[in-house]
Amino acid sequence: MAKFMDVHHGMTGITGEQLKQAHAADLAIQTEEGVTFEHAWADPDEGVIYCLSEAPDADAVQRIHQRAGHPADEIHRLPLTV
Amino acid sequence: MAKFMDVHHGMTGITGEQLKQAHAADLAIQTEEGVTFEHAWADPDEGVIYCLSEAPDADAVQRIHQRAGHPADEIHRLPLTV
Repeated sequence: MAKFMDVHHGMTGITGEQLKQAHAADLAIQTEEGVTFEHAWADPDEGVIYCLSEAPDADAVQRIHQRAGHPADEIHRLPLTV
Repeated sequence: MAKFMDVHHGMTGITGEQLKQAHAADLAIQTEEGVTFEHAWADPDEGVIYCLSEAPDADAVQRIHQRAGHPADEIHRLPLTV
């Protein structure tokens, strides 16, 4: 297992409710790929969303996001944390 | 106060020790701008670092990072969190 930060672009104007629903859609199926989404943060002005997760690999993160209807634009493995 | 995610690029090969030292340099002076750096995560393969903070504004985050010797390439205000 490792930590991952995935990034979604083009989300300008996203609301708190939309972010909550998107996150809930991930949580509903995340165990099927062994993923745990820990947090999501959105900058609605610049349309960027960051999701922090613990997962077996980046593909597992992407499969959950894809099935939930919002594939990530970038996924970064984060072996270093402080 | 708000949450911010700042991003540093071009950090390929950064080590855990270097990340720890950079983070410590921020922590040492952060109160002078009312900033609290909460976490930093690094992807040494792709050279990206993410820092999560609580701060009065993006300029305060940047002033601390600049004085610590590692200005951020992007700073995003994150009014939405789940």
